[in-house]
Amino acid sequence: MWKSSVKPVAAAEVREFDHEADVVVVGYGCAGAAAALDAQASGADVVLLERLSAGGGSAALSGGEIYLGGGTPVQQACGFDDSADDMEQFLLAALGPDADAEKVAAYSRGSREHFDWLVGHGVPFKESLWDSPTWVPPTDDGLMWMGEAAHPFAAAAAPAPRGHRVTSDGFGGKVLMQVLGEAVAKAGIPVHTDTGAQRLVTDVDGRVVGLVARREGRDVTYRARRGIVLTTGGFADNAAMVATHAPVLAGLPVNSDGGDDGRGIAMAQAAGAAVRNMAAGQVGITLVPGMAVRGMVVDERGQRFINEDVYPGLIGQAALFKHGLRVWVVLDEQAYEEVPEVERWGVRPHHVAETVAELEAEIGMPDGALQTSVAEYNRHAERGADPYFHKAERWLRPLRAPFAAIDVRRGMSAPEYGDTGGGAEVFTLGGLRTTTDGAVLDHDGVAIPGLYAAGRATSSMHARGYISGTSLGDGTYFGRRAGVAAAGLR
Amino acid sequence: MWKSSVKPVAAAEVREFDHEADVVVVGYGCAGAAAALDAQASGADVVLLERLSAGGGSAALSGGEIYLGGGTPVQQACGFDDSADDMEQFLLAALGPDADAEKVAAYSRGSREHFDWLVGHGVPFKESLWDSPTWVPPTDDGLMWMGEAAHPFAAAAAPAPRGHRVTSDGFGGKVLMQVLGEAVAKAGIPVHTDTGAQRLVTDVDGRVVGLVARREGRDVTYRARRGIVLTTGGFADNAAMVATHAPVLAGLPVNSDGGDDGRGIAMAQAAGAAVRNMAAGQVGITLVPGMAVRGMVVDERGQRFINEDVYPGLIGQAALFKHGLRVWVVLDEQAYEEVPEVERWGVRPHHVAETVAELEAEIGMPDGALQTSVAEYNRHAERGADPYFHKAERWLRPLRAPFAAIDVRRGMSAPEYGDTGGGAEVFTLGGLRTTTDGAVLDHDGVAIPGLYAAGRATSSMHARGYISGTSLGDGTYFGRRAGVAAAGLR
Repeated sequence: MWKSSVKPVAAAEVREFDHEADVVVVGYGCAGAAAALDAQASGADVVLLERLSAGGGSAALSGGEIYLGGGTPVQQACGFDDSADDMEQFLLAALGPDADAEKVAAYSRGSREHFDWLVGHGVPFKESLWDSPTWVPPTDDGLMWMGEAAHPFAAAAAPAPRGHRVTSDGFGGKVLMQVLGEAVAKAGIPVHTDTGAQRLVTDVDGRVVGLVARREGRDVTYRARRGIVLTTGGFADNAAMVATHAPVLAGLPVNSDGGDDGRGIAMAQAAGAAVRNMAAGQVGITLVPGMAVRGMVVDERGQRFINEDVYPGLIGQAALFKHGLRVWVVLDEQAYEEVPEVERWGVRPHHVAETVAELEAEIGMPDGALQTSVAEYNRHAERGADPYFHKAERWLRPLRAPFAAIDVRRGMSAPEYGDTGGGAEVFTLGGLRTTTDGAVLDHDGVAIPGLYAAGRATSSMHARGYISGTSLGDGTYFGRRAGVAAAGLR
Repeated sequence: MWKSSVKPVAAAEVREFDHEADVVVVGYGCAGAAAALDAQASGADVVLLERLSAGGGSAALSGGEIYLGGGTPVQQACGFDDSADDMEQFLLAALGPDADAEKVAAYSRGSREHFDWLVGHGVPFKESLWDSPTWVPPTDDGLMWMGEAAHPFAAAAAPAPRGHRVTSDGFGGKVLMQVLGEAVAKAGIPVHTDTGAQRLVTDVDGRVVGLVARREGRDVTYRARRGIVLTTGGFADNAAMVATHAPVLAGLPVNSDGGDDGRGIAMAQAAGAAVRNMAAGQVGITLVPGMAVRGMVVDERGQRFINEDVYPGLIGQAALFKHGLRVWVVLDEQAYEEVPEVERWGVRPHHVAETVAELEAEIGMPDGALQTSVAEYNRHAERGADPYFHKAERWLRPLRAPFAAIDVRRGMSAPEYGDTGGGAEVFTLGGLRTTTDGAVLDHDGVAIPGLYAAGRATSSMHARGYISGTSLGDGTYFGRRAGVAAAGLR
């Protein structure tokens, strides 16, 4: 499974540590940056390790949405009231059932302050709303809906848009990491790149006191006087680990910076850490939300399975876990034309046809499958209703010839919006069990002394559902808390 | 999470062991019985521990199907040729993708000999075939199809029925455990009941040398000179563990003897063991296969999602993981009447109606949902085709008024076929990572010395799919191998 052991090394076996700090943060994505910044702000001296040659992590590849609410200045400027309670209720519904209620509560209550922390470090958010379903606004708008007003979530909590998108020309993750990187540099936190953590070092009582890393082919040891924070990311790049724990994700293209090998999780497990919800994952698919919401999303039997106005990540999740990614967006010419060029992400139909029967045959669906679905959709749409899935009336209109379809497994074709070569791309959401302060728990549910974690190395808030913005959001928020805790102040 | 620690105890802390044996087998279900029998047959002296007041485990509650093939005498008597290769290919398809190929190969090649072992210990199989989809034959027939001839499995391997059902008046699991229990008694293997294993005992090198159990409120220690075999079952009874690892199963009624608390898995994990595929599970639902196959299985949108002639466990799995168990069997009067009384399991329709529109409204489906599906089904069935899901022509016929529907979440009402109070009932399939000889692997993929496991405490052969008969089958087969290995002969 691993080329070298992931088991902890006994402290007695380390004659002399090469480096020493109060807090050693492992992995320089958004969670690592946040942990390092707040550990240092808490008075600890910190060193930040990164396996690759530069920081950024998967965060730098992301759209740059951060899920924030409770009445942020951006929400207020766009005319939305919000409360921590509504945010909490929405997250429990959207990330659950069985979301981590304690973390969701902490995150929702801490959100306003966390917004200020981000802005204080220089993270830019524009005070304008993108008002249509999207993965990321194709403009520089700073606020977006994450399905809060869609069925069934509108009934769970008073809807307010909470997707805060870091201002950027395209994907915002790179801007977030640039800003946090500047903050790390300004704070004078040493960053050791090309340094991959291999094993933890534990003392006779099981306390984590350091780690062994690999740099330029040789072992380098770090002593952590107060604590280690693992922010090493998920395990999407480790095919064996994916097959072992998240088989539905196996064999699919991966969304990561290439460093999500799961070793941070495994080396903590080998030191006694428990994990949670390891089968969880998310998928980005070639689905233009502006097209999907004006048309239908169907499976290989031509059957709809979701209201197309939810956050598109939920469509991706249903497509992956329930429909084997054999999913198409079906729309008509009018719907396609209504989507502004900027919002099309370069996606053009993979199939076009004058009749639904022809389209169905061209895709290879059973005779009558799509015809039946479109007829039913149209019959109800005529009167502005969607009794099947409750898409909002705003988006309902009978579909008329000519028709088109987009296969969600095929790649997008607008490289300016990030690397989208792969069509469907997955990442993992399961990981280490941690407290709200990032303490890593063992199989008794007891914190392992000296060991903390945040970001995708942990299982964080999600259970069955996932909403974008919670990765950068919980990575930075719980990263900060882990940094403070590792510094010994909690 | 646990009332008392699951962490291993250092051997140095145990002054004197209360009991001692070459091999200590923990858990007296089918895997434990098989492990104990073959460990002893290999020359080891053995003690068998059981947490409850009597052996049996979940095996005793089961239908009594054992998946066996490669040309058993029962298959031959019923006129079927079979080969280990075909069995292997079927299992790879039905338990996968990503089934444990090494275990499937070993199991398929060992199947003929394993049949002889079972029969040699007195397990009865009648040489007659039940030739219609079923959970368990309602007669005493000894051979049944497990979907081998259904789409898409018929294309994966030459079909032969491989469900070998222990002869019984009703469910066969109790007979299997009675016979194995007699064998254990005859072999003179001591059984310590009311003895729940709590923690492993490890020496300074990490070798497992014993365990601490709890009996009548006090600790009892066991030394294992050669090895410990954990056959402690799954974790379906542990709500916290289910929520942590298999959230889709959370909150549902459980199929177990009440002893599947997962402690065996957790105490091995705390001693460094790795796990696999912990989110996997299976569900038994109130679905009479004879009715389903003559009608349609639909979700809450009235949409079919599977060919109804597969093994019903696969319908249950799709219903649970993809359709939230909001699933109905829809059939007409003729179909219902065609199902012999003995095959009805006491199930009567929960809804009846003269028209599909009425049935649809009564169930609460969207207007047009079921009407559309039945019309499509009938249109194709008229010409003996099912282009949507490829159900065999034998079962295709247009459905005609009057109509009926059965809600799969409601309980069956024939207690003579086992305890069926709960409607849908789940169990877990994930567990410890083991080799084909039952050695428990650590996070480096290296066997933990002295520790073996089999049955539902392990993740065994399954990945995404599950077929009944592989629980009793792999439990007994890999239980035997673990017993032999623990005895030191492999």
